[in-house]
Amino acid sequence: MNGTVDVLVREVGPRDGLQIIDQIVPTAQKIAWLDAEAAAGVSEIEVCSFVPPKIIPQFADATAVVAHALSIPALTVAALIPNLKGAERGIASHVHKLNFVMSVSESHNRSNVRRTREESLADFTRIAELIRDTEPSRRPRLAAGLSTALGCTLEGPIDEAEVIRYAVRLAESGADEIVVADTVGYADPARVRRVFAGVIGAVKPLPVWAHFHDTRGLGLANVLAALDVGVRRFDSSLAGLGGCPYAPGATGNIVTEDLAFMLESMGLRTGIDLERLIEARKIIGSVLQDVPLYGGIAKAGLPKGFKPASGSHQRASA
Amino acid sequence: MNGTVDVLVREVGPRDGLQIIDQIVPTAQKIAWLDAEAAAGVSEIEVCSFVPPKIIPQFADATAVVAHALSIPALTVAALIPNLKGAERGIASHVHKLNFVMSVSESHNRSNVRRTREESLADFTRIAELIRDTEPSRRPRLAAGLSTALGCTLEGPIDEAEVIRYAVRLAESGADEIVVADTVGYADPARVRRVFAGVIGAVKPLPVWAHFHDTRGLGLANVLAALDVGVRRFDSSLAGLGGCPYAPGATGNIVTEDLAFMLESMGLRTGIDLERLIEARKIIGSVLQDVPLYGGIAKAGLPKGFKPASGSHQRASA
Repeated sequence: MNGTVDVLVREVGPRDGLQIIDQIVPTAQKIAWLDAEAAAGVSEIEVCSFVPPKIIPQFADATAVVAHALSIPALTVAALIPNLKGAERGIASHVHKLNFVMSVSESHNRSNVRRTREESLADFTRIAELIRDTEPSRRPRLAAGLSTALGCTLEGPIDEAEVIRYAVRLAESGADEIVVADTVGYADPARVRRVFAGVIGAVKPLPVWAHFHDTRGLGLANVLAALDVGVRRFDSSLAGLGGCPYAPGATGNIVTEDLAFMLESMGLRTGIDLERLIEARKIIGSVLQDVPLYGGIAKAGLPKGFKPASGSHQRASA
Repeated sequence: MNGTVDVLVREVGPRDGLQIIDQIVPTAQKIAWLDAEAAAGVSEIEVCSFVPPKIIPQFADATAVVAHALSIPALTVAALIPNLKGAERGIASHVHKLNFVMSVSESHNRSNVRRTREESLADFTRIAELIRDTEPSRRPRLAAGLSTALGCTLEGPIDEAEVIRYAVRLAESGADEIVVADTVGYADPARVRRVFAGVIGAVKPLPVWAHFHDTRGLGLANVLAALDVGVRRFDSSLAGLGGCPYAPGATGNIVTEDLAFMLESMGLRTGIDLERLIEARKIIGSVLQDVPLYGGIAKAGLPKGFKPASGSHQRASA
């Protein structure tokens, strides 16, 4: 994290938001979306998933999307990978960061990536080796995500010690960063504090990301809880797009605009220009006309006299 | 607060939710709403506002609604009053608690109750005297609410020292409780912590309530922030009904169901049966067919394996 921001906000809408939508968004619109968010000051975007196009046709243009994203100055380009095959495609695309994902819930892991958790871990180890064998200048950072870490629609509550155990195993297997995800929106602030404090302590000094869904309305309260125990990296989705194809009812990542508004209101610099970010919603609104767009700040507007922590002049001088 | 709950959740929908709705809800439906929430374990409800029926026709049946509410066992019945005339009607109705309201924002106070803050304070002093002169068995508790305490659509940011100053003056003038309200949904968690810590310290040992609107999506994050500095009393509205007729865009109190879900998830007992509370939404849904109902938990359902802090047997044994 550079010295001009206090909290990193990563946009995951182009991946998490689009993966459950049947309508294929044209590559040109995806690119316009990335451009608009980067211009608003979003410094990292998960732009696609390297999954077989037969499984998720939405990402058939992953290579083209990554190629454009890499041309945007100062943008960290991340892509999700479910397995070794995805990692190979990701490395070949020259993406900056690969986000491997597995579930703490055995049942959800089987549904989502068709394998046991041990098989996922073994795959992760091979991915880490593959990256180590890659020429250093082309080596992506490797993040490891733990889905359903705060509850699972199939298994219910998830043992908090299990989350820490898998985080440690992923760290030991070569993860550069850990992502802890409330995939189905089960988290509450008390559990968030316990789980994130535990994971941060166990994988130190690796950066730990929080990935929350707002399924039950607690998304930003959970962000606050995570902030309290030291999390400074958050995933979110423009207009709250998102969900999981194998977790019923799991709709809606936390809303990027509302997240950035909360952080900036609290005096935490995100580097994001809220008005330009709100403007970027128009791109997805015009393409995804049948998809509900969420978010309070886009509807209600910024408070009168609002002064963002990042300062209104920041983008001009950036 | 009795020993079986950790946090008091007060339903304000019948007052704050209905005051901006043109459609007059029949008295019988209001009564059914109160009955359903009380049966779900909600122990305090703001049932109406004692304002002239010419100004808000919705509350023309205030006396009848209060009369029924007083017949519900163990329910604390509260009513909003904007002035001395309202207090006289409230005392005559035998309501348990009167919630006087004034704004910290001078401009909002003029818009909302047509007088200066000093005039409101003078009125409050007369109300406190009127209550002291009332026969003890018929004396309602007197709460004093500070609207726009965390920001104002007319004035923008509100000086935090002003909030504390007015809270102290209301306490010195005879308030039994203080209500600090983010009337227009401007609050952020950092400001919430500062303002509520300041007010609690300044009016100790008076109870302090938090009244949040979810206008910009930060409602439950603000609840968490308030909990952190010791607030244990929250206003909310079933399905997030609510707003302020003189604050444009100020729609939506925080959602009672989601608030209770968050608290119960965190291990804080509310005494509320969430499933019965969600069921109570049907009453307002059938009456207010053109009003949007908000809330995550009613749509997504309770998490698999969810164990409320209050215990599922509580209502049966209560």
